[in-house]
Amino acid sequence: MDSHDLIVIGGGAAGLGAALYAARFRLNVIALAKEFGGTGNIAHRVDNWIGEPGISGFDLMQKFIEHVKQYDVPMIQAEVTAVSKVDGGFEIVASEKSYRTKMILFSNGMMHRKLGVPGEEEYAGRGVHYCYTCDGPLYRGKRLAVIGGSDAAALGTVFLSEYATQVHAVFRRERLTAEPVSVEQVAKLKNVELLAMSNVAEIIGDGSKVTQLKLDTGRVFDIDGIFIEIGHLPLNKLALGLGVETDKKGFIKVNNKQETSVPGVLAAGDITNATELKQFITSAAEGSIAAQTAYHTLSRER
Amino acid sequence: MDSHDLIVIGGGAAGLGAALYAARFRLNVIALAKEFGGTGNIAHRVDNWIGEPGISGFDLMQKFIEHVKQYDVPMIQAEVTAVSKVDGGFEIVASEKSYRTKMILFSNGMMHRKLGVPGEEEYAGRGVHYCYTCDGPLYRGKRLAVIGGSDAAALGTVFLSEYATQVHAVFRRERLTAEPVSVEQVAKLKNVELLAMSNVAEIIGDGSKVTQLKLDTGRVFDIDGIFIEIGHLPLNKLALGLGVETDKKGFIKVNNKQETSVPGVLAAGDITNATELKQFITSAAEGSIAAQTAYHTLSRER
Repeated sequence: MDSHDLIVIGGGAAGLGAALYAARFRLNVIALAKEFGGTGNIAHRVDNWIGEPGISGFDLMQKFIEHVKQYDVPMIQAEVTAVSKVDGGFEIVASEKSYRTKMILFSNGMMHRKLGVPGEEEYAGRGVHYCYTCDGPLYRGKRLAVIGGSDAAALGTVFLSEYATQVHAVFRRERLTAEPVSVEQVAKLKNVELLAMSNVAEIIGDGSKVTQLKLDTGRVFDIDGIFIEIGHLPLNKLALGLGVETDKKGFIKVNNKQETSVPGVLAAGDITNATELKQFITSAAEGSIAAQTAYHTLSRER
Repeated sequence: MDSHDLIVIGGGAAGLGAALYAARFRLNVIALAKEFGGTGNIAHRVDNWIGEPGISGFDLMQKFIEHVKQYDVPMIQAEVTAVSKVDGGFEIVASEKSYRTKMILFSNGMMHRKLGVPGEEEYAGRGVHYCYTCDGPLYRGKRLAVIGGSDAAALGTVFLSEYATQVHAVFRRERLTAEPVSVEQVAKLKNVELLAMSNVAEIIGDGSKVTQLKLDTGRVFDIDGIFIEIGHLPLNKLALGLGVETDKKGFIKVNNKQETSVPGVLAAGDITNATELKQFITSAAEGSIAAQTAYHTLSRER
């Protein structure tokens, strides 16, 4: 079996950024992903990819994919089910086919933790959001709910209160469990209503977009959007199997070359602890850096 | 005088990325630059900004600028001549006008060190290049010269030898002074000619593009392009005045939040030591992260 120089796992901004740069570095690279474009595909309206105001996530990802295609990088739609260390590199099994590679890049991202309530899936991207930095600015002058009691939820509430006329902060416990400084900030905001000891029972819509939120306390109120900030799940299982170190939350630890704790294993994008700002732009940059690291590493070994 | 939350110094990818994100974080932000678009404006053909294959540097920078304009960020064309610490923040003098700000972002980049020979300026971007990662792939099947004896020059030679049919490596000393591993790699390349103890005397062209290179040894040969890799000069003078720490080469030391050693002072892009991959994509990402850091810092202080 021929060995590739680099196999990129993941087809979002990080993976595509890596594929582009790896091809420019003339590496023998392939990319494996369940779906090219990744979670970026479902972003309704992206306004933070500089130079492309208001583009849809799907259109932006298509532009990335088309660019990578120009470099003839094989983009194989396949689900990676196993990764193991072998002599001279790694073996990867994806959709029952085996691949060999000298180096491997994990750029398969994270999942936003979901509430699992009626209406959540139906209205995803149409009022239901998981990234306030990304989608918050769409709600200027609107009414919002933020779900969660942690740091991310409190920071999201502060951020969204700058845009929305009214923010309902819904959380399970008696108090927000965020950092005191964030809790204080939230307490000062006049357009924020704190709804403690509450859970979302249902997200109600008119068939095309969210209109109301129903809590398990029985309360129902009108909203235009809901931001669910109850945590992230980095998709780190395959990488953990190789022994890479993660931080407490499960994000893969990387240095500024996107190297993990395991030689030959790189990571880029939402799956890493590189930055708190998990966005297209940071993911694409990390992927590009990982490609350069692969090039330098392999170039030294030759 | 009103104090801004953040003043961005520099109008390239890092500064514009920061301005976009700072506006999305609803900071009171302005950007000061000698020229918006910066050195990106003169890139002939950019093929490494994912999603925009083959765009000109000028057009890409215009897209960035137009996007930032939509957020009403004042972009003031002015040369910053002085920066000082004052109570509650910083005072900046630009084109004889004073500005106050709570935080400051240095994203004013670096200059490529130039040879200072006839033809260099005339053919910049038309055969004369300073970034092999950026422009090397344009020279597939062509003849090139690389100038310099250091690490960057040796790495550039290896990179370019993958594209060009012939690479002339021109350097002042008897030997390349790059890392031994790079020197060995260069020595193995069959399409590389080493020209030691040589300096460029003149870059010759036909009026529209480079055609020949003349050395001080008297030798003249035909080339299609020349890559000058004799070092970078980070534009760090103003930042040094505030006491920020730099690495040996003068790049501003930053952490993964783009914070420098001086509270309130951030840095992003080519001027920093954040990554060795100095590109549009990494600069824009660093600028975006810096904006988030400014937002979090100021948000905590309120």
